[in-house]
Amino acid sequence: MKLTVKLQDHSYPIFIERHALEHVADFLDPHRKYVIVTDDGVPARWVDLLQSQLSDARVITFPCGEANKSLATYESVMEQVISSHLTRKDAIIALGGGVVGDLAGFVAATYMRGIDFYNIPTTVLSQVDSSVGGKVAIDMAGYKNIVGAFHQPKAVLIDPETLSTLDQRQVSSGLVEALKMGLILDERLVELFEQEPLDLDTIIARSIDLKRAIVENDEKENGQRAILNFGHTIGHAIESAYHDVPYYHGECVGMGMLFFLPDPTLRARVQRILERLRIPATPAYDPKALRAFVEHDKKGQGDSVRAIVVDHAGTCRIEPMTYDQIETILERSPYEK
Amino acid sequence: MKLTVKLQDHSYPIFIERHALEHVADFLDPHRKYVIVTDDGVPARWVDLLQSQLSDARVITFPCGEANKSLATYESVMEQVISSHLTRKDAIIALGGGVVGDLAGFVAATYMRGIDFYNIPTTVLSQVDSSVGGKVAIDMAGYKNIVGAFHQPKAVLIDPETLSTLDQRQVSSGLVEALKMGLILDERLVELFEQEPLDLDTIIARSIDLKRAIVENDEKENGQRAILNFGHTIGHAIESAYHDVPYYHGECVGMGMLFFLPDPTLRARVQRILERLRIPATPAYDPKALRAFVEHDKKGQGDSVRAIVVDHAGTCRIEPMTYDQIETILERSPYEK
Ligand SMILES: NC(=O)c1ccc[n+]([C@@H]2O[C@H](COP(=O)([O-])OP(=O)(O)OC[C@H]3O[C@@H](n4cnc5c(N)ncnc54)[C@H](O)[C@@H]3O)[C@@H](O)[C@H]2O)c1
Ligand SMILES: NC(=O)c1ccc[n+]([C@@H]2O[C@H](COP(=O)([O-])OP(=O)(O)OC[C@H]3O[C@@H](n4cnc5c(N)ncnc54)[C@H](O)[C@@H]3O)[C@@H](O)[C@H]2O)c1
Repeated sequence: MKLTVKLQDHSYPIFIERHALEHVADFLDPHRKYVIVTDDGVPARWVDLLQSQLSDARVITFPCGEANKSLATYESVMEQVISSHLTRKDAIIALGGGVVGDLAGFVAATYMRGIDFYNIPTTVLSQVDSSVGGKVAIDMAGYKNIVGAFHQPKAVLIDPETLSTLDQRQVSSGLVEALKMGLILDERLVELFEQEPLDLDTIIARSIDLKRAIVENDEKENGQRAILNFGHTIGHAIESAYHDVPYYHGECVGMGMLFFLPDPTLRARVQRILERLRIPATPAYDPKALRAFVEHDKKGQGDSVRAIVVDHAGTCRIEPMTYDQIETILERSPYEK
Repeated sequence: MKLTVKLQDHSYPIFIERHALEHVADFLDPHRKYVIVTDDGVPARWVDLLQSQLSDARVITFPCGEANKSLATYESVMEQVISSHLTRKDAIIALGGGVVGDLAGFVAATYMRGIDFYNIPTTVLSQVDSSVGGKVAIDMAGYKNIVGAFHQPKAVLIDPETLSTLDQRQVSSGLVEALKMGLILDERLVELFEQEPLDLDTIIARSIDLKRAIVENDEKENGQRAILNFGHTIGHAIESAYHDVPYYHGECVGMGMLFFLPDPTLRARVQRILERLRIPATPAYDPKALRAFVEHDKKGQGDSVRAIVVDHAGTCRIEPMTYDQIETILERSPYEK
């Protein structure tokens, strides 16, 4: 399956196909010079499979984990790219999760003022979320993605087979972002989460297509993309507050969504899906403390947040809420029926 | 005087006016929040003059010199920008020479994936050369400008009065780039260099306008911009070979131009202008050694260079030359009549 992301002057294809990684020559020129960037959590079999099909591809590996989406890793990868004598005609391939894609993409965006970038995401989250949009970044001084650029890939290659080596918790956490897309935009996608067995490939493809449509309408992130924050306002706060548990990002988004589903029937339905995905239940929390984390998140950006509310599966609205209103919402357990 | 650089979706004005720095409110909103980036070689009077006219502008200063156009300085400046809590609505102003403009511009290009950037160049070189084109960069691993981006400024403010504190050798070195523009594109500009007294303001404005036209035609540097390399092929080689003298970049470009002026009358004319500017004479050199530096410069990019040749003042042509041809040219002194 091939989707095309149509942007002003840089459209690019997303290929979604099980086993695509076994025949990459169908998607990119195997005789170009490449640097493959990956991290040491990505199983060697995927790296070897890719490298073996390219005639001139050096592999640069950095230690996995969000802590390495840093300027120090950027410097180290950049130095290796420089010492590989990549020219403007060559390209960088990211093979890994969102950390690899964001960091390698930022290297590609800034090496020689920008060279070609191919993205091969290998986690559910990076496949459904970071494969579209062209956002590349690193973290600095405790702020996520504070340093970065927009750099659209030449192509994105998604092979759901790579997920066979990903642990179940990572898979589920990523699927929450797909569920989110369904809740705000597409009830059919929500229904896919209620089928037996779970059709991962279709869920991934459908989510990407939804994100594609949003990004095309709002390339530089001024308006509509805001709805993608559904579940994130309180989700982020939980992520920060329970820093030492630690929950995965998607798990927190899952918890955070429940607060903005006013209809009890829909809330129960989403709760069942989250249980099926084994997303942990929201931990006991202090509403005031969590409210403070929400405020801290938005620091300096006014005294209200733009909450995304889903009344019916597949639609959403943006509702400005004061921090007091957020606290009121937090005082009610998201699980009461 | 106001020029407008017209680019696809980001046009911007260049204001060229003596004493413009005394009334910046005419060029940018004095009530926005800014960070001013400068280096410690820029006289305090210019920094104070600018800061005193803005209601909320913190100054970030780094040590002057090309060696500080580095990732370490980038990190330090970026951390200070982050701790200033600049948002997407705020802006960065560069006040200084090309080093400040390139580094601060790269910070602006990558902070929060790009925020507004104002450039106030205060050396001749940065006024005539780096104020147009949107190239921002830092050096890494011994390679100049290897890491960077294209990030067009919101506006450029050029006040030739700032040059009153610049030492004469810096002024002359920068003027060579202006002379270069005249030689390749505009005989009238060459003539300006033969007038008494030297009309700096007109020379600067005219050079910028020429570069503007080139950049508009070739925003991402694929074709026509190549002619701006006139004088640089051998100039760069001299710069590298005599690393410890050290010559200024513009001085080397001046020396390098003479080799590509086949007409003896024009060569003598340019030589007189360079003497007037007190550009040092080309040092004694070994043709083979210099040829090796030219080759090294172009490493991995084929076995010939695209030399820019000026037969008549104000016109030029691109001539592919083998390294043997370059060596032949080097064997003849550029000064023989
Ligand atoms: N650019 C965007 O638009 C965008 C969108 C969403 C998230 N992100 C970023 O993505 C990052 C999170 O991405 P993530 O969840 O993929 O985390 P991740 O990249 O850290 O990957 C999680 C772990 O899985 C390992 N892994 C990757 N592929 C694997 C595979 N096929 N089999 C086994 N293990 C594998 C990794 O080595 C890592 O240890 C965050 O930094 C976030 O900011 C970016
Ligand atoms: N982006 C571009 O298109 C472009 C074009 C040409 C050159 N450049 C870059 O510009 C840099 C060279 O620029 P430069 O020649 O301006 O060097 P520079 O920035 O190092 O300035 C030279 C010296 O003059 C000092 N100075 C600056 N303004 C002054 C003033 N008004 N009075 C007294 N001293 C002052 C500086 O502190 C510095 O010590 C190089 O890094 C080069 O790569 C960029």
